[in-house]
Amino acid sequence: MLGLVHTTLFETFAIWGVLCVAFLGLGYAVLLRTQVMKKDKGTERMQEVWFAIRTGADAYLGRQLKSILPFIIILTGVLFFSVYVIPPSGEALERFKNFSPDMVRMIVGMGRAIAFVMGAFFSLMVGQLGMRMAVEGNVRVAQAARSSFSEALKIAYRTGTITGMLTDGLGLLGGTIIFIVFGIASPDVLLGFGFGGTLLALFMRVGGGIFTKAADVGADLVGKVEKNIPEDDPRNAAVIADLVGDNVGDCAGMAADIFESYEVTIVSGLILGLALVSITHQLKWIIFPLLVRGIGVLSSIIGTYLVKGKTGDRASDAFSSINRGFYASAGISMVAFLFLAHFYMHEWRAFFSVGVGILLAIVIDEITKYFTHTHNAPVKEIAGSSRTGSATLILRGLSIGFESSAWQFVVIAVTILAAVLLYRGQPVVFVLYGVAMTGIGMLTLTGNNVAMDSFGPISDNANGIGEMAHLEPQARQIMADLDAVGNTTKAITKGVAIGSAVIAAVSLFGSFLTDVTKVQAQMGVGESLRLLSTGIRVSEPIVFIGLLLGGAIPCLFSALTINSVARAAALIVEEVRRQFRIPGLMEGKVKPDYKQAVDICTISAQKELMGLALIAVISPILIGMLLSVEALGGFLAGVILSGQLLAVFMATAGGAWDNAKKTIEDGLYGGKGSDAHKASVVGDTVGDPLKDTAGPALNPMIKVINLVSLLAAPILIHYNRGDIRVIAAIVLCTLLIFGAILYSKHGRLTFRNYRKGEF
Amino acid sequence: MLGLVHTTLFETFAIWGVLCVAFLGLGYAVLLRTQVMKKDKGTERMQEVWFAIRTGADAYLGRQLKSILPFIIILTGVLFFSVYVIPPSGEALERFKNFSPDMVRMIVGMGRAIAFVMGAFFSLMVGQLGMRMAVEGNVRVAQAARSSFSEALKIAYRTGTITGMLTDGLGLLGGTIIFIVFGIASPDVLLGFGFGGTLLALFMRVGGGIFTKAADVGADLVGKVEKNIPEDDPRNAAVIADLVGDNVGDCAGMAADIFESYEVTIVSGLILGLALVSITHQLKWIIFPLLVRGIGVLSSIIGTYLVKGKTGDRASDAFSSINRGFYASAGISMVAFLFLAHFYMHEWRAFFSVGVGILLAIVIDEITKYFTHTHNAPVKEIAGSSRTGSATLILRGLSIGFESSAWQFVVIAVTILAAVLLYRGQPVVFVLYGVAMTGIGMLTLTGNNVAMDSFGPISDNANGIGEMAHLEPQARQIMADLDAVGNTTKAITKGVAIGSAVIAAVSLFGSFLTDVTKVQAQMGVGESLRLLSTGIRVSEPIVFIGLLLGGAIPCLFSALTINSVARAAALIVEEVRRQFRIPGLMEGKVKPDYKQAVDICTISAQKELMGLALIAVISPILIGMLLSVEALGGFLAGVILSGQLLAVFMATAGGAWDNAKKTIEDGLYGGKGSDAHKASVVGDTVGDPLKDTAGPALNPMIKVINLVSLLAAPILIHYNRGDIRVIAAIVLCTLLIFGAILYSKHGRLTFRNYRKGEF
Repeated sequence: MLGLVHTTLFETFAIWGVLCVAFLGLGYAVLLRTQVMKKDKGTERMQEVWFAIRTGADAYLGRQLKSILPFIIILTGVLFFSVYVIPPSGEALERFKNFSPDMVRMIVGMGRAIAFVMGAFFSLMVGQLGMRMAVEGNVRVAQAARSSFSEALKIAYRTGTITGMLTDGLGLLGGTIIFIVFGIASPDVLLGFGFGGTLLALFMRVGGGIFTKAADVGADLVGKVEKNIPEDDPRNAAVIADLVGDNVGDCAGMAADIFESYEVTIVSGLILGLALVSITHQLKWIIFPLLVRGIGVLSSIIGTYLVKGKTGDRASDAFSSINRGFYASAGISMVAFLFLAHFYMHEWRAFFSVGVGILLAIVIDEITKYFTHTHNAPVKEIAGSSRTGSATLILRGLSIGFESSAWQFVVIAVTILAAVLLYRGQPVVFVLYGVAMTGIGMLTLTGNNVAMDSFGPISDNANGIGEMAHLEPQARQIMADLDAVGNTTKAITKGVAIGSAVIAAVSLFGSFLTDVTKVQAQMGVGESLRLLSTGIRVSEPIVFIGLLLGGAIPCLFSALTINSVARAAALIVEEVRRQFRIPGLMEGKVKPDYKQAVDICTISAQKELMGLALIAVISPILIGMLLSVEALGGFLAGVILSGQLLAVFMATAGGAWDNAKKTIEDGLYGGKGSDAHKASVVGDTVGDPLKDTAGPALNPMIKVINLVSLLAAPILIHYNRGDIRVIAAIVLCTLLIFGAILYSKHGRLTFRNYRKGEF
Repeated sequence: MLGLVHTTLFETFAIWGVLCVAFLGLGYAVLLRTQVMKKDKGTERMQEVWFAIRTGADAYLGRQLKSILPFIIILTGVLFFSVYVIPPSGEALERFKNFSPDMVRMIVGMGRAIAFVMGAFFSLMVGQLGMRMAVEGNVRVAQAARSSFSEALKIAYRTGTITGMLTDGLGLLGGTIIFIVFGIASPDVLLGFGFGGTLLALFMRVGGGIFTKAADVGADLVGKVEKNIPEDDPRNAAVIADLVGDNVGDCAGMAADIFESYEVTIVSGLILGLALVSITHQLKWIIFPLLVRGIGVLSSIIGTYLVKGKTGDRASDAFSSINRGFYASAGISMVAFLFLAHFYMHEWRAFFSVGVGILLAIVIDEITKYFTHTHNAPVKEIAGSSRTGSATLILRGLSIGFESSAWQFVVIAVTILAAVLLYRGQPVVFVLYGVAMTGIGMLTLTGNNVAMDSFGPISDNANGIGEMAHLEPQARQIMADLDAVGNTTKAITKGVAIGSAVIAAVSLFGSFLTDVTKVQAQMGVGESLRLLSTGIRVSEPIVFIGLLLGGAIPCLFSALTINSVARAAALIVEEVRRQFRIPGLMEGKVKPDYKQAVDICTISAQKELMGLALIAVISPILIGMLLSVEALGGFLAGVILSGQLLAVFMATAGGAWDNAKKTIEDGLYGGKGSDAHKASVVGDTVGDPLKDTAGPALNPMIKVINLVSLLAAPILIHYNRGDIRVIAAIVLCTLLIFGAILYSKHGRLTFRNYRKGEF
């Protein structure tokens, strides 16, 4: 069974059990959907706003699918034909020993291509279905808020949970199916699955991030700053785009991002687990992560179902209820892990490495809270510095961002140190496996995390609908409370997303080592010369060069994403200004054309992200070709280091500025309209694209680069630099890059060609 | 002779010749000083302002010396006694074979301690004498500007050249003397020399940076923003502190910083050269860098002497005259290097590796100019974004900062690649030597570079004196022109300082490898287990942990320096406000007490820098003790990567904001007083502490950490973790760190304890 030796009956049952749990998670999502969809959508005016948001969201999703499709088709072909460049692994021949080698090659190629499409499709599903549900949910939350706080909370949280369970269920489903079909040959195929998910997540994260901040910043610059009208004023043509953006960025983008971390940790967990299986001849190393994840899904189902508000109490109650659900899930999982470690793994290290992951998630939560919460020193200091103007406020935020980066480095370092200490005296593969298990543990409660995150944009949108549909003050207050809770839960998830991205990247980095070593072994490279023995030596100048170039990529990426937002926001400004000039619009007699603003955001987000995606996909291949596989390892280390530094810096600084503004709006230093408030608005506007576009975009980028390196490594090893095919490939890549640069210079959306319809 | 085998007569002559050249450089400085001091100091009012600046500067220097002294004394002791923990190298025993081993130990210990004091003293001299000269020069420049442009230019540039020649002369003198006395045993002693210089540079850079920006930001916040009075208004109590700050930061800080890079590249060049000598048994590898530096001093003397303005033309003429001097020096050196490579080294690679260094300096110049010059796209974009407010302006600056970091990484990577290609097929030590020679080449024209840099604060101060002494409009125009030229030359040097810091750090990183390997060889560690063979493997989890922790240090350091400036500036604000309340002061009847503001800056700069210096000195020791020497290697790589990223980011963003403001002040988008101008002032204020304090502070910090690692490495190798003495050391270090934290929390200057005199 499974093409694996020594499979016990328990293990066979366990694997099929995990598959069932994956379906159970999806079934739970369907159940919740039915519950939510039954609820009332409220007044006509509310439905009108909701319909505009839905249309905008659908338009974005349609357009995005269209622009991603060619990419997916080309890469599916590349992945299929890649098996004809490098032969399938020995494990694959072993697994399918009843077939001819040509047939096996075909099977692996098909498997990899299908897995890639599956990964991409699942990621898309999580993002798109989650976002559609969020849109369906928001109007129902707004309606429920008119009668009961606890009902509104329940609907908002359950709608979020749907996305959460989709993330869990689909991630587990994909990994388990591949494992069942391919057994010990899974790594060949799993990489395709991981790459599909990660690539899509990159698209959704970057595209969504540009969309949401272009709309937000653009709408504010004309509305609040120029015309001095309130935030969600219906006369502002970009207001619907802003609401759509919350879904596109915070919901679809974040869900796809976490899904991808969830998936990638399974992928690297299984790859490293299989490496241990081949050393110890025990299957438990790969069954364990799947079981852990299965337990996670079950405890998420129980925990999320417990979340409901009591009528009467408000925001504090909502937050503690959500927290209660989280800790219930965490408690259940921990107990189950203990049993698993004792009775199945027969060793306590398995428990601890997963436990460190859960602990890591909690520590990162606390650090994020410390640096970005309104009642802690950093945000208070930022708010205080607003009294001497926006410059001192910006400086304080920058220094707090840098400081949080430093601490986050320490936390990740300590996490890896835990794996080192746990597997002390064992070969390095064990330590890498330990790190991967930490990643598995950290994302155990993804169901809860994503639910908490999606809760944010759902409440935010409900609040917007309430404002635009002029609902009763009491209902508005309930929605404002929910919105405040949503801001907190959203911020917490952001920290976990970055932390898990780094841990996932480190696991992939570990997989890179074992994978390259495996290919080298197949090629007959002597043991002492294989990468796992030689290591990636930054003391080799060529590897140090790789390290420096790796450091450059996140800088470039951040610069480009910030610029993309600036450009797209400028287009929105022009469009809103144009519409303000339409006679009667400012008086409220003529309705603005919301669709135009949504269109501009959609198109320019799609146009901008192509160049960014190409950088992530091509840069590791170029490094591997022009320098060496070892240099590519240095490159990956550089990308992780500089990527984490910038991602944490931008997320924290942005979050802290945002909350400093909120503190002042709540009445500190003169409240709204004061000079201090004006200074804090500058901070918030600077922070927005950092925390919602540039920072989060780095998470999937780091992993795309790692996965491309993993996929390309065998080819890079097989063909040394003198080979004619490699030279051809270099020429091709260079042409592609120049094409991308040209495209990004000339193919960009401008206001003029948008008005002319030329895009 | 020199305790070296195979020393040819030419080589003996050459070394003594280099020593003479070093004295020649110093003699030239003395000559220029006599020339400058003869000039007229102008009116009584001018001398009064000048005297206030001089008193302030002297007070700062005195106070700084006092607070540095205990540090120096303790470390001198530590360095002397370090030879009793680890025995002197085999080379030292060989060099002093006529002495008993105990005697040799004593000699090496004394040598190292004396070299440390010498390094510190030279660095202090360069900073202090350079700054004193700048203060003497500024009033004379102001006086000369009343009669002739060319005379003012000549005095300003020659005063700057004095600092330049001090840097050159003292750097070369120290290295050569140590080499003459210790011969093949020099590395044991050279590290002390390098450490002394670097540590002092860290103090001067950080202290000076905090002083200058606290005064600048503090003076502006009360004067320009609150009271709406002009920049150099004599009623502002912080105005003299601001002028002193220009000298303390831009002059003393920068000169010490470049001196230290100059010195450290010699140190690592000689260490790596000696490693090659022991492989090839040819002395040329160590003679070459000394000769290159000697040639550099000679050509700097010629080039700088050529700089003089023609009467008639203005700023453009001044800039091209300074440039002409630079290219004359560069041309002379290149021709001389060609001869040297052909007739002495008998190989063209020596020429190219040094040539790449000069090329690197030029490329970095061009990149810096591209990103920060008023007539290039980035600054224009920043200025343009001021129309939509300060938030968009800040965002643009951030993205430009990140982009420039990316390109700087690429440039450094290509530089190292050049060394790899030049020494292809040779052992890795040759490549490292190549990188060190690039550093040697890059700083060949230090004389010119420092002259160009010091020119900045001298003209700036002359301009300030002109404004405060109400000189004639014609003279004021000349000084404004000189000031503008000074801003450009200053910005260019900043780029070179960062670039050279990174190259120097990479060379030190290389020296770390060879040094650790040498110690391991002496301990009888098998060849295949020595660090140069195993390399620093980031693929080892423990090394990766080191890498991450290394990444954290520059983040923490930047956060703390920015905060220090903010705190000190807040004190200045309170003091200036207090003085404004003195009756009659605002009417100009009572003179403000300038000394108080200078005092506050001085004291708080000294208080703030202690914690920062401790981080730099202790962190590598802790990493090496708690993890391993290999992890320490990863730590160094992380420090270099993250340090370069942040240093370039901050310098570029700051420079670009500064110039965007200048463009607008020159009339763009409404000129002074417009909304665009206000937005650009915010950008400039944010950029100031980044580009003048936090960014430059990273240069010496990176090198202090590298040098401490080099010094501590033998001890760390000798005593593994179980050793009782190491545990004692860890306890000691931890106590020190806690002490530093406590000190920085409670020992900080506050307005209250300052007024009470309790500090």
